[in-house]
Amino acid sequence: MSDYGIKELRAQIDVINLQILELLNKRARIASEIGHLQAKLGTQFYDPQREAEMLQALEQANNGPFSNETIKALFKEIFRASLALEEREARAKILVQRKHAEEKTVIMLPDGTEIGNDHFTVISGPCAVESLEQMDETAAAISSRGVKILRGMAYKPRTSPYDFQGLGEAGLQIARQVANKYDMLVTTEIMDRSQIPTLSEYVDIFWVGARNMQNSFLLKALGQIRQPVILKRSFGATLQELLYAAEYIVASGNPNVILMERGIRTFEPWTRNTLDISAIPLLKQETHLPVIVDISHSAGRRDIAVPLAKIVRASGADGLMVEVHPNPPVAMSDAKQQLSIPEFHTLMDAIEKVTV
Amino acid sequence: MSDYGIKELRAQIDVINLQILELLNKRARIASEIGHLQAKLGTQFYDPQREAEMLQALEQANNGPFSNETIKALFKEIFRASLALEEREARAKILVQRKHAEEKTVIMLPDGTEIGNDHFTVISGPCAVESLEQMDETAAAISSRGVKILRGMAYKPRTSPYDFQGLGEAGLQIARQVANKYDMLVTTEIMDRSQIPTLSEYVDIFWVGARNMQNSFLLKALGQIRQPVILKRSFGATLQELLYAAEYIVASGNPNVILMERGIRTFEPWTRNTLDISAIPLLKQETHLPVIVDISHSAGRRDIAVPLAKIVRASGADGLMVEVHPNPPVAMSDAKQQLSIPEFHTLMDAIEKVTV
Amino acid sequence: MSDYGIKELRAQIDVINLQILELLNKRARIASEIGHLQAKLGTQFYDPQREAEMLQALEQANNGPFSNETIKALFKEIFRASLALEEREARAKILVQRKHAEEKTVIMLPDGTEIGNDHFTVISGPCAVESLEQMDETAAAISSRGVKILRGMAYKPRTSPYDFQGLGEAGLQIARQVANKYDMLVTTEIMDRSQIPTLSEYVDIFWVGARNMQNSFLLKALGQIRQPVILKRSFGATLQELLYAAEYIVASGNPNVILMERGIRTFEPWTRNTLDISAIPLLKQETHLPVIVDISHSAGRRDIAVPLAKIVRASGADGLMVEVHPNPPVAMSDAKQQLSIPEFHTLMDAIEKVTV
Amino acid sequence: MSDYGIKELRAQIDVINLQILELLNKRARIASEIGHLQAKLGTQFYDPQREAEMLQALEQANNGPFSNETIKALFKEIFRASLALEEREARAKILVQRKHAEEKTVIMLPDGTEIGNDHFTVISGPCAVESLEQMDETAAAISSRGVKILRGMAYKPRTSPYDFQGLGEAGLQIARQVANKYDMLVTTEIMDRSQIPTLSEYVDIFWVGARNMQNSFLLKALGQIRQPVILKRSFGATLQELLYAAEYIVASGNPNVILMERGIRTFEPWTRNTLDISAIPLLKQETHLPVIVDISHSAGRRDIAVPLAKIVRASGADGLMVEVHPNPPVAMSDAKQQLSIPEFHTLMDAIEKVTV
Repeated sequence: MSDYGIKELRAQIDVINLQILELLNKRARIASEIGHLQAKLGTQFYDPQREAEMLQALEQANNGPFSNETIKALFKEIFRASLALEEREARAKILVQRKHAEEKTVIMLPDGTEIGNDHFTVISGPCAVESLEQMDETAAAISSRGVKILRGMAYKPRTSPYDFQGLGEAGLQIARQVANKYDMLVTTEIMDRSQIPTLSEYVDIFWVGARNMQNSFLLKALGQIRQPVILKRSFGATLQELLYAAEYIVASGNPNVILMERGIRTFEPWTRNTLDISAIPLLKQETHLPVIVDISHSAGRRDIAVPLAKIVRASGADGLMVEVHPNPPVAMSDAKQQLSIPEFHTLMDAIEKVTV
Repeated sequence: MSDYGIKELRAQIDVINLQILELLNKRARIASEIGHLQAKLGTQFYDPQREAEMLQALEQANNGPFSNETIKALFKEIFRASLALEEREARAKILVQRKHAEEKTVIMLPDGTEIGNDHFTVISGPCAVESLEQMDETAAAISSRGVKILRGMAYKPRTSPYDFQGLGEAGLQIARQVANKYDMLVTTEIMDRSQIPTLSEYVDIFWVGARNMQNSFLLKALGQIRQPVILKRSFGATLQELLYAAEYIVASGNPNVILMERGIRTFEPWTRNTLDISAIPLLKQETHLPVIVDISHSAGRRDIAVPLAKIVRASGADGLMVEVHPNPPVAMSDAKQQLSIPEFHTLMDAIEKVTV
Repeated sequence: MSDYGIKELRAQIDVINLQILELLNKRARIASEIGHLQAKLGTQFYDPQREAEMLQALEQANNGPFSNETIKALFKEIFRASLALEEREARAKILVQRKHAEEKTVIMLPDGTEIGNDHFTVISGPCAVESLEQMDETAAAISSRGVKILRGMAYKPRTSPYDFQGLGEAGLQIARQVANKYDMLVTTEIMDRSQIPTLSEYVDIFWVGARNMQNSFLLKALGQIRQPVILKRSFGATLQELLYAAEYIVASGNPNVILMERGIRTFEPWTRNTLDISAIPLLKQETHLPVIVDISHSAGRRDIAVPLAKIVRASGADGLMVEVHPNPPVAMSDAKQQLSIPEFHTLMDAIEKVTV
Repeated sequence: MSDYGIKELRAQIDVINLQILELLNKRARIASEIGHLQAKLGTQFYDPQREAEMLQALEQANNGPFSNETIKALFKEIFRASLALEEREARAKILVQRKHAEEKTVIMLPDGTEIGNDHFTVISGPCAVESLEQMDETAAAISSRGVKILRGMAYKPRTSPYDFQGLGEAGLQIARQVANKYDMLVTTEIMDRSQIPTLSEYVDIFWVGARNMQNSFLLKALGQIRQPVILKRSFGATLQELLYAAEYIVASGNPNVILMERGIRTFEPWTRNTLDISAIPLLKQETHLPVIVDISHSAGRRDIAVPLAKIVRASGADGLMVEVHPNPPVAMSDAKQQLSIPEFHTLMDAIEKVTV
């Protein structure tokens, strides 16, 4: 009998839901009319005083069981929804949001290579450009395994102002020269929008580092160009924040954004960061943008690079980035996480064996 | 004229607001009834399937101008508010929940000392009982400053099975003997309910360590006795979980529970744990139980013990626990965090200077 | 000529390098001897007081050109290396520690099934035992896909004392009956050592939940029996702590321990916990025990279960645990994370497709 | 006797320490000579090939007990120390590092107000500048309580590109006008170095938000000006990283930096961030810069603002920042955390009562 009671009460709720729905839309139509009148009068659409008065009236009329706080919170949501209706309707939806299951952004690179289109892309190279010999030896090895994108930092964002900050434009020249020799593309980190003109001469793909993920001036400037941008998740950022950061670039005009997971900060000390592998299926579900994983910075140690690469291959990610150096123990930065060339070959063998 | 138009339209909105208000409260009353029926049936309040069906019905009925997304977002807020209402009603039955601003549990100790009644209680002593001399020297010093509760572990929960595990019953005997000499009470850690009979012979106040905060068998057993229980927050537990753990003890019959904040795990490496100081006002707001802070285990370093003590004194906490050892560098455990006796005096001086 | 000068000076440096090398190793041998003496005396390896004295002596003796800061930094590295050497020697005695690359513990189950021996083991069943029908329907489905181990909680550890706590022994009887019908083994959670006799009548494999991972009394008691024990990592525990918790069981006499990763607490809200996938290769490297992953509790949502299963399959883990329920929306607990039976089949199909 | 053995062995280690010290300094002198010769020859000082050869030679000569990995790690530290010797000696030390117990940076403001000199500074105002009325009402109230610094964002860094981004320069004009009327100073957030000229016309104190804490281009640009800069700790940054970020500004020429703690990301959901109160004594110990606390963004809720203010007052911090709005429920951002004016008065009363 009480089960019958629940059904009966639920039917009543269904009716009330539809009544509320009708009132909400009626309210929205009137608010919209007011908005148009205000626009003609040139007065500001948003009127905090008016909202305060409405909230006060509701508070006085409220007999519960909802508390005044709850009622005010709900109506503030309604006010916000009304306020944003026109903009929001115009915008339709967030641009980076996946609209249907099959939607995907495929990044077309200058040499015809695609990212985001089934092919699993490996981006590799040393942490930083150190010398022509170092870049040449690395590029020879990785291009022999089909890697088409060469990484290498010329300007390094460092925690300390006294750490090695990169070779600068000299590093860019080396990277370009080597990439041309081996028919590769160059990707490097951009740290400020003032670098765009210089970097554009040498670089095919920009990446935004974790420290700048929410630098909205840089993101908007990267929306003005056409080169693809790899956007790294900050080690302190939620996935929602990563998507909004990508939206800054896309909404500014550049649809060629690739998301990169590279670990988040947790209490576990055996890895530098904790690779958030669940981020891959979650991002693939939420956005049409390609998603790749940096296995070097997430772990911060090379001894688990091979299993991590297999994991990433099976995760549905569109690719991975891994650091390789001809002589890791003498690398000027991140010595512990860069693979030697033989280790890189082992990793490529392992990836190739995985089928999903 | 259009200004008149705006006034007219606003009056219409005011009417709609009140209609929505009435429907929201009517809806809440019915949802509440359903909640009561569900509680009798033993099913959960939150029913995702039901919510999905309601949202689908609304989506089908929606003709705009609000988008389906907006309508769904608004109704999800309404669902959430309903659910919160039901949970608030359920929580009104939680025993540890503060029901009104003045409610507080005052723990009456065997010697007439009270915890939770305005007085700021300092609990002190070494990490572990090591010897009679060590306990005597410590107790002499701390009791001279008015400390009435002597801590000291006899059974130590250790991460590794090979670390020093405490002196056992011999340690309890030492602690009791010294406490009697200086007219103090003894508090020590309990790790399993089988220890209750033995510990009860020596100990005035039990404490449950962070590793056992959710050991429900132990919590229920401590609900069967009358000695006060200090319940330490696990370094991985939310405040909500701490309150529910306390509820296990109180609901089992023992109202004498004292909550202890001792830091949570985060990525910051300069302290062993991050002292969550906001927990103090939040817990004082949510529960009538006394709340104290362990400044030794939260920081894991003695050099900031004095400012931490001042902070805790000003926070509204009912007291603090601090480890003191006659010779910290040779302590058998936690050498880095135990204060020397002169440092303890400095700390007491500092606390006494704070007025709030 | 100056190039000659450089060669000459470099030769001098080469000589000094070897002299330093010899002194470092000589120093390490003596430090190791001290470590052995200390181990006999029961004092700790790490002695901050002694280190402070050594640094002070070096500071006083230092005439540059290295600054005192540099000298102290270098010697701290040397101290750390010495300490690590002693700890590595101590760890060689940790039972769960992998001693050589090929070492592995294979758990032999009553029906001849093995865990830890190349085969990828799937453990499945509902969160909690709710009824005979529910268990029968689930077991029929999962056993048809080769699953040999049926999970189902009879005693549920709950955050709130008022939540559904399980059917108790009636639940155990149901689980056993159904397992016998489908020729399966039963695994369920144990929360207190007092449950061992009762559970032993019905259960083939125990598991210790995250909340009890450091309940040393329970761990030691499980060391007295011979049934395999799955030890779940606490959401607030480091991998080091998980290994030491396993050591409690193994050192007490039961070598049949299986480690389980099930996510850690972080700030990311889109998953209930963050699955720490790097834990798999790290644990496989550090210990010879089998390692499996609970994909249901880590994510807390079923919509990414299939990619997570593929990830785990590729990670080198020995298996996974996944919750399945004939009708997830009406499940009495964890409704959001249990798979329906068709979803379970999709997941098994996906796992079978992965090759590594 | 074994205690005697330890003493004896320790004496041997003391001798070896001094021998290593001597060799290290001798090595440094020679490396320095090589550096001078290389500088004359115009060849690069850093020579990875040479380092690789030295490491190989050491590896071949190593007989243990230190492993080759340990030996290589130790020597890489020695190489790095040598490499950086000249720069490092020149730099003496990190500029923001406190050199002796009494050292402190006192920020002198245009109106003679000082930050960092015993006085407890309160910075207040709304989250964002919304209108002249809102700013005037707020400034009237807070200046009546002695607050000299008015906050208010004109350019808001938002997670989403579609959220309210601030009034821009119109907001700056309002803030300046109101500040002048009440004899106050203006502080607002700077997000990109291109904003410096415009902001400089209106603003007395810049602040760098959490999202830009490691934007090194912005930090270096702020080192070129003389206005004080409040540097907020990122919610994902360690204290070490905060200090290095401050060093970027100071090393670029602007010594007027104020550090701000504003909570870090953890798993605890009852506060938006977890206020890391231990950061205050730790920063006061490590640096001579003033340290203040943002109690609004750390908690994200106004109901615990008063106890948090008392806590901060007792912590040794040089001040706090708190958001105040004449009508919080209608605020365009952060409505939940801004205090009403009566609440602000309660908070000031509470602070004034605390003595430390």
